[in-house]
Amino acid sequence: MKQSQMLIPTLKENPTDAEIQSHQLLVRAGYIRQIASGIYSFLPIGRRVLNKVENVVREEMEKIGAHEMMMPALEPSELWKETGRWNTFGSELMRLHDRHNREFALGATHEEVITSLVRHEVKSYKQLPLTVFQIQNKFRDEARPRFGLLRGREFLMKDAYSFNESYESLDETYQKMFDAYSNVFRRLGLNFRAVIADSGAMGGKDTHEFMVLSEVGEDVIAYSDTSRYAANIEMAPVVTTYEKSTEAPREIEKVATPDQKTMKDVAEFLGHDLEQGLKSILFQVDEEFVLVSTRGDHEVNDVKLKNLFDADIVELASEEDTKKVMGTGFGSIGPVGVSEDVKVVADLAVEAMVNVSCGANEEGFHFTNVTPGRDFEVHEYADLRFIEEGDPSPDGEGIIKFARGIEVGHVFKLGEFYSERMNATFLNDQGKAKTMIMGSYGIGVSRTLAAIVEQYHDDRGITWPANIAPYQVHLLSLNPKKEEQKELADQLYDTLLESGIDVLYDDRKERAGVKFADSDLFGIPVRITVGKRAGEGIVEVKERATGEQSELQRDEIVSYVKQWYNA
Amino acid sequence: MKQSQMLIPTLKENPTDAEIQSHQLLVRAGYIRQIASGIYSFLPIGRRVLNKVENVVREEMEKIGAHEMMMPALEPSELWKETGRWNTFGSELMRLHDRHNREFALGATHEEVITSLVRHEVKSYKQLPLTVFQIQNKFRDEARPRFGLLRGREFLMKDAYSFNESYESLDETYQKMFDAYSNVFRRLGLNFRAVIADSGAMGGKDTHEFMVLSEVGEDVIAYSDTSRYAANIEMAPVVTTYEKSTEAPREIEKVATPDQKTMKDVAEFLGHDLEQGLKSILFQVDEEFVLVSTRGDHEVNDVKLKNLFDADIVELASEEDTKKVMGTGFGSIGPVGVSEDVKVVADLAVEAMVNVSCGANEEGFHFTNVTPGRDFEVHEYADLRFIEEGDPSPDGEGIIKFARGIEVGHVFKLGEFYSERMNATFLNDQGKAKTMIMGSYGIGVSRTLAAIVEQYHDDRGITWPANIAPYQVHLLSLNPKKEEQKELADQLYDTLLESGIDVLYDDRKERAGVKFADSDLFGIPVRITVGKRAGEGIVEVKERATGEQSELQRDEIVSYVKQWYNA
Repeated sequence: MKQSQMLIPTLKENPTDAEIQSHQLLVRAGYIRQIASGIYSFLPIGRRVLNKVENVVREEMEKIGAHEMMMPALEPSELWKETGRWNTFGSELMRLHDRHNREFALGATHEEVITSLVRHEVKSYKQLPLTVFQIQNKFRDEARPRFGLLRGREFLMKDAYSFNESYESLDETYQKMFDAYSNVFRRLGLNFRAVIADSGAMGGKDTHEFMVLSEVGEDVIAYSDTSRYAANIEMAPVVTTYEKSTEAPREIEKVATPDQKTMKDVAEFLGHDLEQGLKSILFQVDEEFVLVSTRGDHEVNDVKLKNLFDADIVELASEEDTKKVMGTGFGSIGPVGVSEDVKVVADLAVEAMVNVSCGANEEGFHFTNVTPGRDFEVHEYADLRFIEEGDPSPDGEGIIKFARGIEVGHVFKLGEFYSERMNATFLNDQGKAKTMIMGSYGIGVSRTLAAIVEQYHDDRGITWPANIAPYQVHLLSLNPKKEEQKELADQLYDTLLESGIDVLYDDRKERAGVKFADSDLFGIPVRITVGKRAGEGIVEVKERATGEQSELQRDEIVSYVKQWYNA
Repeated sequence: MKQSQMLIPTLKENPTDAEIQSHQLLVRAGYIRQIASGIYSFLPIGRRVLNKVENVVREEMEKIGAHEMMMPALEPSELWKETGRWNTFGSELMRLHDRHNREFALGATHEEVITSLVRHEVKSYKQLPLTVFQIQNKFRDEARPRFGLLRGREFLMKDAYSFNESYESLDETYQKMFDAYSNVFRRLGLNFRAVIADSGAMGGKDTHEFMVLSEVGEDVIAYSDTSRYAANIEMAPVVTTYEKSTEAPREIEKVATPDQKTMKDVAEFLGHDLEQGLKSILFQVDEEFVLVSTRGDHEVNDVKLKNLFDADIVELASEEDTKKVMGTGFGSIGPVGVSEDVKVVADLAVEAMVNVSCGANEEGFHFTNVTPGRDFEVHEYADLRFIEEGDPSPDGEGIIKFARGIEVGHVFKLGEFYSERMNATFLNDQGKAKTMIMGSYGIGVSRTLAAIVEQYHDDRGITWPANIAPYQVHLLSLNPKKEEQKELADQLYDTLLESGIDVLYDDRKERAGVKFADSDLFGIPVRITVGKRAGEGIVEVKERATGEQSELQRDEIVSYVKQWYNA
């Protein structure tokens, strides 16, 4: 394609609202333009890359027997009301009325639509399992769209849905989908982890998020330094074994700790390590108050607390409630001598502690030489803290490290959440009506594109992996006014095209410096420059990613490019 | 693909709301399902066909140098307000608010978005001409969605936009686009006409609609029986030459015509042919009243009237206004003795008439032996009637016939309508700022799919053209319980797949009758049935469209299919 005829507007300066590299580079290199907050147009080279990502996803879906279909963006509210999500989805769901005042949701996801379709069309176990997918724009009214394509309000997504006759069959589909996702992100050249995630409010069981490792990611991942284990930090169990302190318990003492507010303040004031202190926090767990104690250097993980009590809601108690229940405010509470209305639970690490200090439930006072079991009762010891770097990996292999990740995919065992509410049943081989077992599986296609740029760029621009680049070759004619340069470049352009190679041909009347800078910005893997030695039939070839360059005779070009791409 | 694993729900009965063949067949054969009025899901085989139509369109667009991009469906209302279309587009435009109460239109078309983009990014004549396209779902809140995919509210469309530096350059792009559209519809096997259309309110100049000929079409086309000429009937000029009657003018007479309401009643009552009567209709043309006279057998074409007066609004006068202006109601008005406030215009045919009858502007009376020019003044004679079957073709070749058409494409010279309102300018080669000259070009992709079915079906189902069919071969194993049949069918399935042939394999445990009926319904061009002679390695091959069938040895199958598709 001739660059002079194409809309690829490049910018020298970063757009003022672009905080991260992928956002800056995709705008500067003319891949995308913002139309409104969180809403983008894909310009021609952007659309080309998006098509390539789409096709990788499509191929891997088809390989596992998922069938492409297309559901509408306009989803009748009646369906969302059947599952209750019309209310629970909140203001991220964009809503509108048609001319007859019927309400619609603008497709944020399609569980309701597909379940409604399948319950009408699938009646027998013979038609199961069934997996369908689609690739289309989705709409979510993010409160704070940002980071370009990473958190937009209209974005391209692949969503898939599976219907199975049993949980065992779902497990199989889930595993296939998991493997397909791994293939997709591997083929896209991404450094990613499949991460154990929180199944949250959906009531499902297993769920994994596929995270591209990146400093700009919004999620923190705990991963093993030697195995494939990875989990969202709130999901990782702590398997550390704590050795019981061999110290002899001393007598409990109450000491004044005036103006000492934090755990650190108190530890310094009392002259011991942070981990010799006991941290206590009051939570409201559904209807009851629970005091949670951890070692002073640990953090309470409220997801674990929620799971322990099988609770719907877990919230920090307000300072007001804390004073009412404990007799004092945040800085001075502790488990010694609490009222019977308050359940005390503690992290497993606490069980191993002796002679610790903790708040005395009296403003400005702490106890020292407290020993759990002797000085206070613990209702239950459990794993209640966040995992930390250095902890052993839960799978027994290696130790935990942290990384930030961009969520690009999500596989989810939905179970019967939708099928039960929407009455999606089938007749099993005994002729009995059963509820279908569902899974849902998403890939953020446009977000993945941005994640690729986060991992593939340098200070001059994008450095696309070979199979995703908008073109295979960027052909530059440095000075098209010189007849010999123009002629050779034109000939090479035709030759490359005839050989089935995708070429972007910079035939513009621009200075060489502009052309080089734009070329680096675009990130096409192989650059061929027709310059001063055109008369001799010699051109310069440069690899975008490595910067390696060499000179080649015109006849060698096609085979060089073909070899480069097959290597 | 194995049919047992795919969602292709077929129906024996037509859906009650489906009035036309394409709607009935696409639903019955499991290509589409309605989600809400005018809103459809494409099931897997429907998506396959849609992809194929999409790809033909994409290829032809790329051939003429149009670049694919993708604009969002969410379009800020500010842009639509710049062109005034936020108000004028009316209730077909779906509108919504985001969480910050900003207004958006749901993409019905993208002139505003692309013009806003181009005005920011294109500054110089060197970047022109520029043509971009996209393929995506569009939204229009039709008052009366019907006919399945023919008139939906969410539908797949290819829209393209061109930006040129001059009208001459636009003419070139327009012609390229015109040819590309012709190629698209030809490749899709459609019997279509490119039809001169009304540029309507857009202020553009040339515009053509691509019409697939079909009895269920909503538009009437006038076309030449021997040339390529075709126009929407309201657009076709009448080039008939009328020979002046040689009859001697007789004396005008006023006669009672009690209770004779219509032209036909009056003609019969007075004992003459319909074409010896003069039809008169009062119109309101912008602010003035105009009486239009045509020959009794002709119909007034209000588009021509509008053009004659260069008017914004042309409407039939109400009966009340007619009485006030003419002194009597609809059935008895005529051009003789009208007030000076009323302009009389007449169709060219009237100029040739002598001794005609017409309303006497008095309830229950007509004049006879009226001669134009003598008995009434005509402000202007002009071509003011609809063309009719049998009229000579305006291009001088052949005579006019009528047909109904489904509009599947539209090419439109927009000129400066959008670029002027949105201030999209560029610097020409003299460094002077000029307004860009635009064109827009649409193809209804999902509607085209339905139009194909309208032209390709019989009483048993769809008969897809070879390049659009969801699969190339439908392989049926008649009785999979018989080991030899199952084995041969399984082998053939693998062999065909390995040879790169798309196969749908009906491996279901259904009766032979069900399989044959479903196969006819789907419309895959070549059917291969493994039945009783499987033991001998012999299968039956049947062409869906012609019904021709033959027996083949298993080894002959692949080459048969390849030849069939290359033929």
